[in-house]
Amino acid sequence: MKQVERIGVSLDKKLLSMFDKLITKRGYQSRSEAIRDLVRQQLSSERLGNPKAKAVAAVFLVYDHHSTKLMGRLTSLQHSHILQTISSIHIHLDEHNCLEVIVLRGRVGEIKRTAENIISLKGVKLGRINLIATEPA
Amino acid sequence: MKQVERIGVSLDKKLLSMFDKLITKRGYQSRSEAIRDLVRQQLSSERLGNPKAKAVAAVFLVYDHHSTKLMGRLTSLQHSHILQTISSIHIHLDEHNCLEVIVLRGRVGEIKRTAENIISLKGVKLGRINLIATEPA
Amino acid sequence: MKQVERIGVSLDKKLLSMFDKLITKRGYQSRSEAIRDLVRQQLSSERLGNPKAKAVAAVFLVYDHHSTKLMGRLTSLQHSHILQTISSIHIHLDEHNCLEVIVLRGRVGEIKRTAENIISLKGVKLGRINLIATEPA
Amino acid sequence: MKQVERIGVSLDKKLLSMFDKLITKRGYQSRSEAIRDLVRQQLSSERLGNPKAKAVAAVFLVYDHHSTKLMGRLTSLQHSHILQTISSIHIHLDEHNCLEVIVLRGRVGEIKRTAENIISLKGVKLGRINLIATEPA
Repeated sequence: MKQVERIGVSLDKKLLSMFDKLITKRGYQSRSEAIRDLVRQQLSSERLGNPKAKAVAAVFLVYDHHSTKLMGRLTSLQHSHILQTISSIHIHLDEHNCLEVIVLRGRVGEIKRTAENIISLKGVKLGRINLIATEPA
Repeated sequence: MKQVERIGVSLDKKLLSMFDKLITKRGYQSRSEAIRDLVRQQLSSERLGNPKAKAVAAVFLVYDHHSTKLMGRLTSLQHSHILQTISSIHIHLDEHNCLEVIVLRGRVGEIKRTAENIISLKGVKLGRINLIATEPA
Repeated sequence: MKQVERIGVSLDKKLLSMFDKLITKRGYQSRSEAIRDLVRQQLSSERLGNPKAKAVAAVFLVYDHHSTKLMGRLTSLQHSHILQTISSIHIHLDEHNCLEVIVLRGRVGEIKRTAENIISLKGVKLGRINLIATEPA
Repeated sequence: MKQVERIGVSLDKKLLSMFDKLITKRGYQSRSEAIRDLVRQQLSSERLGNPKAKAVAAVFLVYDHHSTKLMGRLTSLQHSHILQTISSIHIHLDEHNCLEVIVLRGRVGEIKRTAENIISLKGVKLGRINLIATEPA
C-alpha cells in the first residue's frame, strides 16, 4: 500500500485562480494531480543533471532509408549497447524519410553518449533525445 | 536526384579546431555532415514555433499500470485523435510503472494540446513531448 | 492587501520526502514557497507561448568590442526600439570580448524578433535571450 | 592577428534555400556569419554540460520589493560570492515588482548553486538563469 500525506499550501488568490484556469485547460481533474506532476517533473529534471542517475530515454530520429549503410550501423549500434536498448519503432514518413524511436535504458551519461553517436551517423537528418529519470532504487 | 551545392565558410582557426574536437568526439565523419545537422536543427526548431507547421511527435509517458481506468482513457484518446496517432510502444519498467511512447502526426498546435491532455490524465506520473517539424510540402 | 488561500495537496510519502530533500538543498524555507515557485514558473512558460503576451527580457550578448561598427548598430537598434529597451549593462570580459545585457520590455513576439536581429549582427559571438512573462493587467 | 580558415560545406539545394530564407529573416548578412553562430552555440552548450567549465551568467529575478528582508539577503548573498558577482541592474516593473539582473562569473556548477539559492529566497517570484561558457584559457 502506498502511503499518502496531505500538506497545506498557501497561495495568493490571484495566482491560484490563474493556476486553476491553466490546469482546467490542460485537462487536470484536481489541483493535487497538477501539483504532483510539477513536483515529479522537478525531481526528474534534477536527477537528469547527474550523469550517473538511472534513466530511460527515447531517441527520436528522422533518416533517409536509402542509406542502407546507415540501417546496418543503427542495428549494430543498438546491439553493441544491447543492455540499454529496450525496444524501437520504425515509421515510414514519406518516400525518402523514416522515423525511428529507440527506447534505451541506462545511466544518463552513457545514454547521452550513445544517442550522440546515433545522431551523428551519416544519413540521420534530425535527432532528439528525451530522458526521464527513473525512481531511485 | 538530389542537387547538392558547395558553399565556403570562413572560420577563426581556434573556433574551427574546437569544433573539430567536438564533432570527432560525437562521432561525425565530416564537418559538412556536422554543419548540415546544425542547419537542419535550426530550421526544425524555427518551424516548431509555428502552431500550424506539420510535425511528428513522440509523447513519452511513465504511468502506473494499476490504474486500469487510465489505460482505457489512453486508448480512447488515441482513437479520438486517430488521424494523428501513428504507432505506440509499451514497456514494463518495473512492478508499478509502464513506459509508453506514442507517435503522433499533425499540426504543432494540435499535437501539443493532445499531448497535454494525455499528460494531465490521473495515473500518468511523468510525460515529455518531443517534436520534429517535417519538411514543408 | 493580498488575499491568501490555503489549499490541501495529497502526495505520496516517498514523493514528498524526495521533494523535501530537493527543496532543502535549494535553500527553500517552506514547501509552500517551493510550490508557489513551481506554479509561477508554469504560468510564466505558458504565457510565453503566446506571441502577444507582455514580457520582460534580458538579451545577453558576448561580442568583440573591436568591431566599432557593431557598437554603433547596437545603440541605434536599441533606440529604434526605444519603447522596449529599459536598461543595459556592459562588462569587459577580456582583451577581446565584452558582455552586454540588454533589458527589453514588450510583447513576446516583438522581443524575440528584436533579439534575433541583435544576435545576428556581425561581431556578436554568442547570444541568449531570457524572457519572463509579466502578470496580465 | 586572428587567423581565419576557409572550409567547404556541401548542402542539399533545398536545405540551403530554406537556410538562406531563415537567416535573411533573422538579419544575417552572410552564411558564414550564421554558421559561425551555430558552431559557437554548440560549443558553448557542450561546455555548459561540464560543472567545472568557466562561464558568465545572468540571473534574472522578479521580486516583491516590499520584502525588505529579501533585499538585504540578496545583497549579502552577492557579497558572500563576491568573486563571482560582476554587476547588477535593478528595474522597477510596477507598484509591487522589481526586476533584477545579476551578472556572475565562475564555474558552471558554483554559478548554478548560487543562482538556485537566490531563486529560492522568499519574495522572489520568478527566476531564470542564463549561462554562456567563456572560451577556455
